[in-house]
Amino acid sequence: MCPHALIPYKPVNPKSRLSPILTKEEREQLAREMLSDVIAAVKDANCSPVIIATELFDSEDIQITVPDKDLSGTLNEVLSESPGQTLIIMADLPLATGPAIKRVITTKSDMSIVPGRGGGTNVIFLKDPSKYHVDYYGTSFLKHMKIAEEAGLSCEVIDSFLLHTDIDEADDLVELLTHGTGKSREYLVGLGFVLSAENGRVRVERKAVPAGKETPAPTP
Amino acid sequence: MCPHALIPYKPVNPKSRLSPILTKEEREQLAREMLSDVIAAVKDANCSPVIIATELFDSEDIQITVPDKDLSGTLNEVLSESPGQTLIIMADLPLATGPAIKRVITTKSDMSIVPGRGGGTNVIFLKDPSKYHVDYYGTSFLKHMKIAEEAGLSCEVIDSFLLHTDIDEADDLVELLTHGTGKSREYLVGLGFVLSAENGRVRVERKAVPAGKETPAPTP
Repeated sequence: MCPHALIPYKPVNPKSRLSPILTKEEREQLAREMLSDVIAAVKDANCSPVIIATELFDSEDIQITVPDKDLSGTLNEVLSESPGQTLIIMADLPLATGPAIKRVITTKSDMSIVPGRGGGTNVIFLKDPSKYHVDYYGTSFLKHMKIAEEAGLSCEVIDSFLLHTDIDEADDLVELLTHGTGKSREYLVGLGFVLSAENGRVRVERKAVPAGKETPAPTP
Repeated sequence: MCPHALIPYKPVNPKSRLSPILTKEEREQLAREMLSDVIAAVKDANCSPVIIATELFDSEDIQITVPDKDLSGTLNEVLSESPGQTLIIMADLPLATGPAIKRVITTKSDMSIVPGRGGGTNVIFLKDPSKYHVDYYGTSFLKHMKIAEEAGLSCEVIDSFLLHTDIDEADDLVELLTHGTGKSREYLVGLGFVLSAENGRVRVERKAVPAGKETPAPTP
């Protein structure tokens, strides 16, 4: 059976920590491209994407629209009704690949987890979702490990930087430009972003895009 | 045969980007503890550590002392004389584990590589070091992939966040406190560092250490 892959997604005004370098419209388009990359990886791993979005948006994939309340509460409601193996994967993981997700869903443990950068949680896989609940606020990785322990579930930590790398701020775009192969990298390049090495440290820099080569404005 | 593991190490005034939160002595001690963690992981993967240090320092392991010139030049000299399979692993990877390093050295390709955060290179494994040279400045990961291609060597990128996470600045200590299990984490905890979550973002914070529980000053 294909596990369902729940993908929380915020279409409107996402990724506010990228505001210093991207307009609201650009952040929304980047979020959309990252979601596409995640969906492609999820499908490549034979999972069925279910987008948990705070607004209805144009998509061919199954979506559940929920009020913009707390993420954990929403996911826990969905998990409690989930009939079988379930993956929860964040939408801001544009380096995700099918093989990396396969490592997650083929765990021999009761569940597996991939930490995000900064104490967070990027991916959770549950063989029996009814036995678990999530809590994404703050140091969620440590919380999720503790919830597993309290529930008596064995939990494998999957050692993947492709799934560990979430895109929140300007420095994270270095990772996307360096390792990305999908639509989000292409979108960034179209906006004029390039890698720039100064004093041995690598940053992103935005160059002017030649006329006629601009990235098209997002379609409404 | 056990591959040699070359570990570049700077004992004096290392990790200057940690200066805002650690004294020079503390940075030197943290660097030493991280080196210990890397050596333990390397040995657990059945590799023989060879420390390439800029100063002679007290150690039971084999060390080569080199002038503080450019890292790439030094390593390329060593590689040109290296008789067999060789690993190059940075000393600031305190999350390194034996199983993660085993994934690197059991590649089916001619070589394997683990990118560092920010475009760098944390680990390189070479089956035939005479066919390769390194260049660690700037966007070294992309350079190293290109050097492999030009040399006609197949190269596997190993997807490991434990080996991807290098410790350069304060935010990186969040990773060490969250995922570390070795001496460097213990040293940080002894200095009073704890995780602190504010507005959902996780940082490190340094608390006063109760009298009598201070981390001992580094031995000269």
